[in-house]
Amino acid sequence: MRFVRYGEVGAEKPGVLDREGRIRDLSGVVDDLSGATLGALPQLDPETLPLVAGDPRLGVPVDGIGKFLCIGLNYSDHAAEAGMDEPAMPILFLKATSALSGPNDPVSLPRGSVKSDWEVELGVVIGKPAKYVSEADALDYVAGYCVVNDVSEREYQIERVGQWTKGKSCDTFGPVGPWLVTPDEAGDPQNLALTLDVNGDRKQVGNTASMIFTVAQIISHLSEMMTLHPGDIIATGTPPGVGMGQKPPVYLNEGDVMELEIAGLGRQRQEVRRDP
Amino acid sequence: MRFVRYGEVGAEKPGVLDREGRIRDLSGVVDDLSGATLGALPQLDPETLPLVAGDPRLGVPVDGIGKFLCIGLNYSDHAAEAGMDEPAMPILFLKATSALSGPNDPVSLPRGSVKSDWEVELGVVIGKPAKYVSEADALDYVAGYCVVNDVSEREYQIERVGQWTKGKSCDTFGPVGPWLVTPDEAGDPQNLALTLDVNGDRKQVGNTASMIFTVAQIISHLSEMMTLHPGDIIATGTPPGVGMGQKPPVYLNEGDVMELEIAGLGRQRQEVRRDP
Repeated sequence: MRFVRYGEVGAEKPGVLDREGRIRDLSGVVDDLSGATLGALPQLDPETLPLVAGDPRLGVPVDGIGKFLCIGLNYSDHAAEAGMDEPAMPILFLKATSALSGPNDPVSLPRGSVKSDWEVELGVVIGKPAKYVSEADALDYVAGYCVVNDVSEREYQIERVGQWTKGKSCDTFGPVGPWLVTPDEAGDPQNLALTLDVNGDRKQVGNTASMIFTVAQIISHLSEMMTLHPGDIIATGTPPGVGMGQKPPVYLNEGDVMELEIAGLGRQRQEVRRDP
Repeated sequence: MRFVRYGEVGAEKPGVLDREGRIRDLSGVVDDLSGATLGALPQLDPETLPLVAGDPRLGVPVDGIGKFLCIGLNYSDHAAEAGMDEPAMPILFLKATSALSGPNDPVSLPRGSVKSDWEVELGVVIGKPAKYVSEADALDYVAGYCVVNDVSEREYQIERVGQWTKGKSCDTFGPVGPWLVTPDEAGDPQNLALTLDVNGDRKQVGNTASMIFTVAQIISHLSEMMTLHPGDIIATGTPPGVGMGQKPPVYLNEGDVMELEIAGLGRQRQEVRRDP
């Protein structure tokens, strides 16, 4: 199943895609797609639900995300382009949930920002509370998968005294979606092709098979330190091809367009603007 | 005014202290103390409200906290004891909101943790959306102040590949409260005495006058990178005397008791346990 939330910002309704990829209205079945409902997503035939007219905006496919957890340097070839050693265990940082943004909403650069960058990532949404979970059991706690653009301001991330959060948490720097794809439909999370284009040029190409730490290893590791709650999302790191890794580095400017895709999880498209 | 939330975990009701420090029931005036209501906290005479019987548990005095922002190394003498240089600008990391805990709830060490530590801090709760706010205007965005214990697992923070979040985000590692004290009653946020005792021994002594970056500077700086939303909380750094800074270092064990106080903002008391 491919779940969506559609409608204007703050007024999204739950939906599900039918066989033709059209949105069906799910609001008669669940109030919303959120931590409270992810543990028991309905098994149903989308074709029986009302068709949604038009081409509505898509929002983040999960409401009320409590933690936006991100894994750094999780592809060996990206670690190399960043000039960093492969980490001995998953690197964790948090992205502010106020950075969350719809998959096709504009990305707005902060005033004065000159080093904003892209990062296509596999997103993992937790479906039930996970604490001290073994690697063998970890995928049982996944509600679904999605595309994440971990937009990153490299000056804020690296040159503003070290902790990465500043560069990761700007408003609109967390596009998520378009869909929340259930595990049965997403297939093996360690065999998904990822791409990201800027202005039509292919910048990032990767496959989750190249992750240093698998989704199951990440969930197990994090759950040793904190409870992962339903609706938490984990962005699992980015393959090579970020702007910082170009020679010379290339960063985002107003008017640029980012297009991201993960096989089976859908496409994002963001226009780049700047805060007034 | 000194606001509280009282009752069992997840079922707290809003309250306000009267002149004698007794809890008065505020639930007839506001649904809850949260981002939605902090911008317009009621001006009222607590003595006119119903007295709450007994001695209920206190919860985090604000519900629905979106961002738990923390400033690192913000007291020059604490930076020295940590063996770190004074930072050139505020160091930001995020603590998972799932770490939030009532001011007197037990703190539970993760299985196997051997380096858990204490940090008394002034907490600042945002009352209205703040973006690109000047230092001169910054305190206008504060709903109130509170005590925070930024409990920290030093092995997870420092030895688990670098970003600090892992050591800051364990469940129960974020006691907040007992009160949300409005700015008019809290007085000058840069002249508040802080103390922390472990098992009755005074470990931390400090005053917010020794902050490297003031509350106003921190709010202004963060608001250049992201919107601070009502209900966000900023923990503004800790004075010297943490366990890691003792010679030799001293860490928390099961059965220890932490007691924290900030002048005018109340006291916390936590018993230390361990995850089963």
